[in-house]
Amino acid sequence: MNRICELTGAEFPLFAFSHCRDVVAAVSKAGGFGVLGATRFSPEQLEQELAWIDSHVDGAPYGVDVLVPEVIDPRVSELSDNKSRAAAIDPAYQGFVNSVLGQYGIAPEAEMPILRERMGITPENGLALMEVAFRHPIRLIANALGIAPPAMIKEGKQRGVPVTALVGAKEHAIRQAEAGVDIIVAQGTEAGGHCGEVSTLVLVPEVVRELAHHGYDIPVLAAGGIMTGGQMAGMMAAGAQGAWTGSVWLATPEAETSEAFRAKMVAARSRDTVRSRSRTGKPARQLKTAWHDAWDAPGGPGTLPMPLMGMVSEPAFARIEREAASGNKGANELVSYFVGQGVGLVEQVRSSRQVVQDFREEFLDAIGSLAASVGME
Amino acid sequence: MNRICELTGAEFPLFAFSHCRDVVAAVSKAGGFGVLGATRFSPEQLEQELAWIDSHVDGAPYGVDVLVPEVIDPRVSELSDNKSRAAAIDPAYQGFVNSVLGQYGIAPEAEMPILRERMGITPENGLALMEVAFRHPIRLIANALGIAPPAMIKEGKQRGVPVTALVGAKEHAIRQAEAGVDIIVAQGTEAGGHCGEVSTLVLVPEVVRELAHHGYDIPVLAAGGIMTGGQMAGMMAAGAQGAWTGSVWLATPEAETSEAFRAKMVAARSRDTVRSRSRTGKPARQLKTAWHDAWDAPGGPGTLPMPLMGMVSEPAFARIEREAASGNKGANELVSYFVGQGVGLVEQVRSSRQVVQDFREEFLDAIGSLAASVGME
Repeated sequence: MNRICELTGAEFPLFAFSHCRDVVAAVSKAGGFGVLGATRFSPEQLEQELAWIDSHVDGAPYGVDVLVPEVIDPRVSELSDNKSRAAAIDPAYQGFVNSVLGQYGIAPEAEMPILRERMGITPENGLALMEVAFRHPIRLIANALGIAPPAMIKEGKQRGVPVTALVGAKEHAIRQAEAGVDIIVAQGTEAGGHCGEVSTLVLVPEVVRELAHHGYDIPVLAAGGIMTGGQMAGMMAAGAQGAWTGSVWLATPEAETSEAFRAKMVAARSRDTVRSRSRTGKPARQLKTAWHDAWDAPGGPGTLPMPLMGMVSEPAFARIEREAASGNKGANELVSYFVGQGVGLVEQVRSSRQVVQDFREEFLDAIGSLAASVGME
Repeated sequence: MNRICELTGAEFPLFAFSHCRDVVAAVSKAGGFGVLGATRFSPEQLEQELAWIDSHVDGAPYGVDVLVPEVIDPRVSELSDNKSRAAAIDPAYQGFVNSVLGQYGIAPEAEMPILRERMGITPENGLALMEVAFRHPIRLIANALGIAPPAMIKEGKQRGVPVTALVGAKEHAIRQAEAGVDIIVAQGTEAGGHCGEVSTLVLVPEVVRELAHHGYDIPVLAAGGIMTGGQMAGMMAAGAQGAWTGSVWLATPEAETSEAFRAKMVAARSRDTVRSRSRTGKPARQLKTAWHDAWDAPGGPGTLPMPLMGMVSEPAFARIEREAASGNKGANELVSYFVGQGVGLVEQVRSSRQVVQDFREEFLDAIGSLAASVGME
């Protein structure tokens, strides 16, 4: 269909970011392109996940997204492993977590259950995951935040795997182009997870133009808010060569989301998300709850830099999910996850395969209607 | 082309909101649809403006946008004229204005130069302007903020003039539909001026769906961030029947903007705007300067409700423009105006007629490319 399809082998340029191998395989088999978000796995776990995908994807193309953060925050740049990072967190933070959870019927924990050993969003984990990914027949590798590291660019070029980077501002697109990436995802502020301040509708043509002005011929995918084939066609009319999506897959039964969260997705309006530092340490959009109100309030303790904030928040969110699943109604109110404003367009839980089919139909319908309105047939 | 065109007489469904009659006439004559923003005029001035348009628009359709605010803030609901409103403003506010301007080389004024008599964003002015508008052959009347007043709905129906309302959330669209409006403008957070929090790309399909779910068959225009025909086609693919635009016309020589502001528009990135209460009292997007930093900072005096905030800010911005025009470089730094994130897509000043022509070309090109990519011709 276009250059993105040639580069990646996708039949239909709908890229599906998911932490769940089932979503990745289902999307790729349906003609889209699944991208496994690998950040939460250890290298051994990722190896298992990719082996599973290889044996279930029927040879369809897929990709992997890792996160190799550029550590520039002086508060964490000297901390080289999770143990020293954990030691650097003031115990008062656990007190604050206990107080927020306590208000919603979750009893306090005596000790701070931070992720002492678990792999997290750290440079060493990102690079280890990348090495695992390159041992599989991936057709795309993405770096989710910041400049793609030189090792990724180099190995991507050697193996013919296009390197993809997400950006939220035109200046970042130029920095990624200078670093040597092959595909740029222009991700608007309405996106779930880490995002900037500019809307997808403005960012996509701004990034496309800026790349052209600097002489770069790099295709751009649109991300942020895209839940339908009509929106996907729309962003392609505005200059993108396809769509990069995330939130829409969270409302599939294959996803890693809990039933409690999927129920909230169906009920939520677009205004029910917030862009907050209170889960990862960097601004990330998520479903808004009292957790975010508490951390973002002027009187709060302030948020910690990445990856420390996640070492505090993720055990708390895991606890919230466990409590909610066992019937704690207060805990249910705190259930949250990374999701974009497009959550307001989720009306039901559908299979991943069905979502791809709906996108393809809506995409063709939208283009057909537009063409008919101006007398093309 | 579609129902919006039938309702309004527009040949091409590109609606151009402007405070300048020259823009309105030029756009309508070029096949688009000019809408005169009337809020800043007295009824007598508006009468003159519309008479001028009538004699310069060659019979092409045009509309008027007034602002009849629903006054619900208890701080101002008892204040029934500008004199009592002015008396209610703490003189400390002028002290704060003087301090901000003083830091940029603008000498303080002894007396508070608030708009004591001038018409402003008040209910009585809005209704008076509406009466003037209905005495002209308008093909659309819009209410810019809040629910369209019953008098507007009634007179619109009697005269066959479609009543249009701007909304930033799906619930507001339903309230407007219940009030009886004929056209809804779904305006995203990236828009210049008053705006909500949801992006255009998400809001448009969300509003279209919500209206359908409630059984309303009301066409929707997309607003916020639209500066090109490609984006316009894109929002029509996502469910809109046309585009409502504002910022793009500020970079035309016909506009009311100063040369200083137009130069800033060409230089600005999409990230250089801010959604702030510091000019009108309600959240409105504008080019970000030290004015906004000062008012929005935690230590500031806080903003006043509409219309009081404008009575403080507008004389200050008028002064800033005068000082900047006479060569005061500090004042130039404070030059600002209502503009959306689309300012990042402004590359040059073009005539209004040229902007319409560019939109039409880009619109057809975008649809043609999309259709070709899926094998339609």
